[in-house]
Formats: sequence, structure tokens, C-alpha cells
Amino acid sequence: MLYLIICSGEKASNGEWIISGRFITFEGGEGAGKSTQASLLVEKLGQFGIAAAVTREPGGAPGAELIRKLLVEGDTDRWAPFTETLLHIAARHEHVLRTVQPALKAGSWVICDRFFDSTRAYQGYGLGQSIDAINKIHEIVLPNFIPDLTILIDLDVKTGLSRTSLRKDHNGTRYEEMEVEFHHRVRKGFLEIASNDPGRFVILDGNMSIEEMAETIFATVTQHFGVST
Amino acid sequence: MLYLIICSGEKASNGEWIISGRFITFEGGEGAGKSTQASLLVEKLGQFGIAAAVTREPGGAPGAELIRKLLVEGDTDRWAPFTETLLHIAARHEHVLRTVQPALKAGSWVICDRFFDSTRAYQGYGLGQSIDAINKIHEIVLPNFIPDLTILIDLDVKTGLSRTSLRKDHNGTRYEEMEVEFHHRVRKGFLEIASNDPGRFVILDGNMSIEEMAETIFATVTQHFGVST
Repeated sequence: MLYLIICSGEKASNGEWIISGRFITFEGGEGAGKSTQASLLVEKLGQFGIAAAVTREPGGAPGAELIRKLLVEGDTDRWAPFTETLLHIAARHEHVLRTVQPALKAGSWVICDRFFDSTRAYQGYGLGQSIDAINKIHEIVLPNFIPDLTILIDLDVKTGLSRTSLRKDHNGTRYEEMEVEFHHRVRKGFLEIASNDPGRFVILDGNMSIEEMAETIFATVTQHFGVST
Repeated sequence: MLYLIICSGEKASNGEWIISGRFITFEGGEGAGKSTQASLLVEKLGQFGIAAAVTREPGGAPGAELIRKLLVEGDTDRWAPFTETLLHIAARHEHVLRTVQPALKAGSWVICDRFFDSTRAYQGYGLGQSIDAINKIHEIVLPNFIPDLTILIDLDVKTGLSRTSLRKDHNGTRYEEMEVEFHHRVRKGFLEIASNDPGRFVILDGNMSIEEMAETIFATVTQHFGVST
């Protein structure tokens, strides 16, 4: 028998738990396996009786996907770096308002492939933009909207980039085309961001097999939210 | 003989004035005549020996024009209002960094058809977004980058909208398609913004003929910058 407890849920007047949706983000560099694992987590949660939706950034809503096209296509120097930062935040606002929040309000869990830590790591650490400015704008745009749990899949840059170049549908994005040093700064950035916020982050080794990683993630999630399996 | 003095210019070591570019913005509702007047001002300044470039928002740089397409096309509710606000600010950042500032640094005057007052009036007053939030983000994104002079062409909403509908190339933008009440809020917004910043703003009556308006604007500009004709 499946038994589900959400520790931080609210109790309704009839004594039953009102299970509100949880917001889980996946972060990491290119080729870390985030998309695959986000989909596998949704599948496993579904088998466990938890409705969950997978989404991604930049994108995840019709307008946000149009902004995504502007961000992932074209030359690496297509945008002034802070313009790029603002486009990511604009796409995120659209995504949160039109996809993520409605799903959470309806009680679904939302599993998101990249969120604001990617902006800090890619545009902040990678492109040298002010992380303080990014944080301040975020706080104005989406005040207190923070993931319940963030899974950082850490992988060395060389392995990650070699994985993306082997993808069947490979058609290098602007980010994949950036210099290797950029990707090293991004990796370092993610690790620093995670170490500053240990209560929200779990760091996993991206060298695990897909199956091993999926089991580790599911165990992490159920433990983090106090879901008894 | 033409005689030019820029009062706030700097003096070089050889005693000559270093004439740095001036940044003049045109603001107003739909059909006020901003684009026409911006081009005419550039022409008149050119005849006077002042190099000036005309540009517009949203747009004015290759990337910013792509963002413009996202903003002016499609259904009126295409974007969550604050997403739209952020897209305008992203386009403006690109425009300022890649078009406006380089031109000003090269000594050219820049005449811009719409700038950040339009964001305050359209997204703030028109769409009900927080003007405080807009101002704060602006101060982070483009600190202290303020027009030297802003010409607000004020016109009643009905006249303005009837003018745009008569344009040869008329293909109503998202903004033109918005409800009439929206345009009334925008007009009120522009007038309030201008009255709060009288040193930067000149308000002109949009009912003047094109020629009369162009002469009034040129006289206003030369007087404002202490240019003797």
C-alpha cells in the first residue's frame, strides 16, 4: 500500500492533508542529463500517484518559447550580456505566471529543467554580469518565488560537452558554442551557488548511469518531502 | 553665419568646446506624430550642422527589433503585463548599448521615438504595472541614463487613434488594438510623468500642423541647449 505524507502540507477542516504542489528544479551545465532526469522523475512520481508536470527554461509557455528562440539561436555575441539576462528573466516571468504557478495552484508538482540558478551561473558567473543585479531584479519580478528543492547535476565540462555533441538532434545552441572557459566558470558558479544554499540544493555526480541517477533522485525527493514509499 | 554654443559642453585643452552628443526623446500616445517630428528634427539639426541620428523604441538595434516584433504583433493579451514590461526594458538595454551610447560617444545627437517614459505610461499607467518596480529595474539596468530633453506631444485619444487608422501602411499594432480606456490611462500617465519632471519635459499640443510643430520643436531644442541660430 502506498502511503503519502507531505510534512509541510496544510490540514483541511475535515482533517485531511491538502497536498499543494511542489516545485523542483534541475540545474547543471551542458550535457549533465537534466532533461532526461526531469522526465524520469515525473514518470516515477506519477507511478507513485503524484501528478507532476515537466517543463523547461528558457521556455515552458508559448511566449517564453519564442523568447527561447532568440536566446539559443544565433551567434554567441548576438546580445549584449545584460540584454540576454533580461530576456531570460522575461521568459521566466511568463513561464512562472502562465505555466508553473497555475499548475502548482492546481496541486500538481512541477519539475523544471533549469530555473533562476541558471541565470546566475550562465549570465552571472559565465558572462560576468552582476549577480547582485540579477538577484535584485528577480526579487522585484518574482518575489519569494523559490524552488522547494534544486537538484544540481555536476559534471566535468569536457564530458558534458562531448555528450551534447553526440546527440542525435545535435544542432549546437549559442551556449554550447561558447568557449570552454565559459563552461568552466558556469560549473564553478553552480557549485558556489549550491554551497551557499545547502538547505535547497542537492548535488549529484553526473557520472552515474541514467538508471542509478534516476533512483538516487527519486530517493532524494521522497526523503526531502517526507514521502514514505 | 551659424554660431553654435553648447552651454554644458566641456572645454578641451586647446580652448575649443568638445561638443558631446545630446539625447532627445519624443513621447506621446498613438498617432501623436512623434515619428514624423523626430525625423524632421534630425533633418533640421543636420541643416544646422549638427549630426543627429533618429532611432525608435521598441527597436533601434538588430536584436531589439526582433524583440519589437514580439511586442507589437499578436493578440492584446499575448503577454503577462510584467513580461511585456521586461521585454521593453530588455529591448531598451540592447538599443542603448549597441546604438544610442555609441552614437552619443561619437558626438552625434540621438533623437529617439519613445523611450522609458513610454514604459511607465503604457505598462505602468495603461496596464497597471508597478511604476516603482519599473523605475527600480531601470535604475539597475541603465543607471543614470536619462534623456537630456523629452518632448511630449499631447493629443486627445480619439484624434490620435483616428490618425493611425488612416495610415497607408496601417496594420494595427497590439497597442493600437487595446481598449480606448487603456489609451486614456496612457495619456493621463504621460501628463503626470511630465508634470513631475518639468526640467526635462516640454509638452506640446498635438493639434498643431506638421510644419508648425516642427518649427516649435526646433525652437524649443535650440533654446533648451543654448544653441544660437
